[in-house]
Amino acid sequence: MAMSGNMLIVQSGGPTAVINQSLAGAILEARKQPAIQAIYGAAHGLKGVLEERFIDLRRETKATLEAVAATPAAALGSARKKPTPEECVRVFDILKRHAIRYFFYIGGNDSAESAHLIAENAGRAGYPVACWHIPKTIDNDLRENDHTPGFGSAARFVALALMGDTLDCRALPGVKIDVIMGRHAGFLTAASALARTRPDDGPHLIYLPERPFSLARFAADVEAVVARHGFCVAAVSEGIVDEAGESIAARFTTEVDGHGNAQLSGTGALGDLLARELKARTAITRVRADTFGYLQRSFPAVVSPADAREARRVGIEAVRLAVKKGGSGTVVIRRKPGRAYGVVYQPRPLAAVAKETRRMPDAFIAESGCEVTPACLAYLRPLVGPLPRLGRLKGVPVKQETLA
Amino acid sequence: MAMSGNMLIVQSGGPTAVINQSLAGAILEARKQPAIQAIYGAAHGLKGVLEERFIDLRRETKATLEAVAATPAAALGSARKKPTPEECVRVFDILKRHAIRYFFYIGGNDSAESAHLIAENAGRAGYPVACWHIPKTIDNDLRENDHTPGFGSAARFVALALMGDTLDCRALPGVKIDVIMGRHAGFLTAASALARTRPDDGPHLIYLPERPFSLARFAADVEAVVARHGFCVAAVSEGIVDEAGESIAARFTTEVDGHGNAQLSGTGALGDLLARELKARTAITRVRADTFGYLQRSFPAVVSPADAREARRVGIEAVRLAVKKGGSGTVVIRRKPGRAYGVVYQPRPLAAVAKETRRMPDAFIAESGCEVTPACLAYLRPLVGPLPRLGRLKGVPVKQETLA
Repeated sequence: MAMSGNMLIVQSGGPTAVINQSLAGAILEARKQPAIQAIYGAAHGLKGVLEERFIDLRRETKATLEAVAATPAAALGSARKKPTPEECVRVFDILKRHAIRYFFYIGGNDSAESAHLIAENAGRAGYPVACWHIPKTIDNDLRENDHTPGFGSAARFVALALMGDTLDCRALPGVKIDVIMGRHAGFLTAASALARTRPDDGPHLIYLPERPFSLARFAADVEAVVARHGFCVAAVSEGIVDEAGESIAARFTTEVDGHGNAQLSGTGALGDLLARELKARTAITRVRADTFGYLQRSFPAVVSPADAREARRVGIEAVRLAVKKGGSGTVVIRRKPGRAYGVVYQPRPLAAVAKETRRMPDAFIAESGCEVTPACLAYLRPLVGPLPRLGRLKGVPVKQETLA
Repeated sequence: MAMSGNMLIVQSGGPTAVINQSLAGAILEARKQPAIQAIYGAAHGLKGVLEERFIDLRRETKATLEAVAATPAAALGSARKKPTPEECVRVFDILKRHAIRYFFYIGGNDSAESAHLIAENAGRAGYPVACWHIPKTIDNDLRENDHTPGFGSAARFVALALMGDTLDCRALPGVKIDVIMGRHAGFLTAASALARTRPDDGPHLIYLPERPFSLARFAADVEAVVARHGFCVAAVSEGIVDEAGESIAARFTTEVDGHGNAQLSGTGALGDLLARELKARTAITRVRADTFGYLQRSFPAVVSPADAREARRVGIEAVRLAVKKGGSGTVVIRRKPGRAYGVVYQPRPLAAVAKETRRMPDAFIAESGCEVTPACLAYLRPLVGPLPRLGRLKGVPVKQETLA
């Protein structure tokens, strides 16, 4: 029989367009579970837990929860705080004091690690708390998952942005550099390839954190594309590294978060460096760089249908698993084999997704190192959803004799 | 009776999400006009005209033209070229040699100026060419117009982006600076205000090129907002100027286009400068800056319905006016008085919109200088179209006695 007790849910890490689907899914499912008494939310992740600032999620109407589900970013507020061992003890004390038997942590690998620390503490203290992690990250870098909630919508934004940007750069030719999020994994940058509908469409070059980046090679690559197409659109991950594995963007920042990660987004420094180097190393005069920044993770009205649906389901599944199994764990998304797209949701231990992240598999990266493979495109397509069809003029040239 | 002859159409200046609506509208209307024989398009504005690289627009199917109409950027290709006096003579020779009696120039004020130079040349040479300008500019800075095609869709992108960005910054509090296009006019930056649905929503500060910008004042403004709301989202025009009227962004660039305008977009330099200064002048630690760049003018799937409709109509009207009146001119959009939104299209001389641009009227700017007025919001709303409704948790705090 399921433990009876209160529930606490938090959101952590970078917001996504669908993280509130998971929140709404978990709350609405919890309301159906007789074992779950009060349903609390803490503001700004562990910070709100440590300050015991809870809100009563039973007081929210279904209409509000559905509206919140369709709203980007983290409705409870988020944080990038990694708990210290002392804080883990305090969190556990707080859970116990408030009769919380169900604790849900919506977040990425850092959040899974925090959940793991708290679960271990509860286990040692003999006060069982079902401690479940609900996956989210636009970086798509959680191990064990085919893909993660939040990624599909961010990937959709990137694909749409590159569609528009290629058209823009074709109209006013030059070189366009687009810097895309993804600290260690190139999935989001790879999604730029979905923008192509014709052979000469951009992005013409795709630079991933999984392959070493060289400025000299970059300049040569761009020159070759410009010679061929008259313009060049390059998709560059914010996480690109040099031959020594050192982050190129991190050379420009000294700021790190609670998990020791350097600030990569919210600055145009990497794009500007690449544009400057390209102008210095080549004869190309029109070079522009845009850094997509926070738009790609929180833009309303650009949501992948599959992503929204799956984000809802992982929230629901986590509550069901917690009630049914207790203990701790995470819900992973696995893709069903076969041609039609489908997924299953499975429980896995927290340690399986905590700490280390995963990167793009080699099978997704072309030998050139600046292109993705057909397997990668096939993997990405259902996650992003249908993209708009773009028109192009047939453009029949008028013969000079006709003109004369 | 209308002159009989061929037609040539070009696109110029920065692309927009709806400039191809104007192109499709003009072509489809021209096909209905018996006076118009061949319908040519030149690639990349005046460049294609001077190189006599024409395509046959009668060979495009209606389905292709409709698909192109719904596709961002300039389907013919664009340019930022201002013709020299010698080139104006050459363009005129080319028009004459190819029996072109109808010349259409889709673009902003620089394009209207170019069209004006060409029309004057044709007039002097006694070879009448109907020379009509079709307005477009996301900057919304064409004189005589209530607003310009392209603006509404870019403004819609900005409003949506700020909705998402405010949610993101509320979730992970700090300061967020968003740099928005608009060289001399603050309209697009002002549209960020449409993102607000609740009193504490961002943007909390709006800096326009129409009011002098001071770093010290900016830092004080941001500190006050953070003290009040715990976070701050600032919308900053790329065109902000100091007390002496000098562009702040232009301090970081040496690149100018054919019309002598400095490069402001396609670099994160201004945002990064503002973030750096804010960190140096205040105790605020989390400061992020995004520069929306080219996304705001060419993003597919973010189009204002009114903007698409009106962009189509100015293309149609220009062809009708050219056939009916000959001569030269531009089509301006005027708003009908009254509560319900509606516009009329009127002919005006090219000189009325060429060269000088217009700026935000004083009535749209609040006394603080970093806020827009209700009149401005009322002006903007119908241009952008309905925005998504965002959900927010009621957030009833759990009382400590209940918790204990």
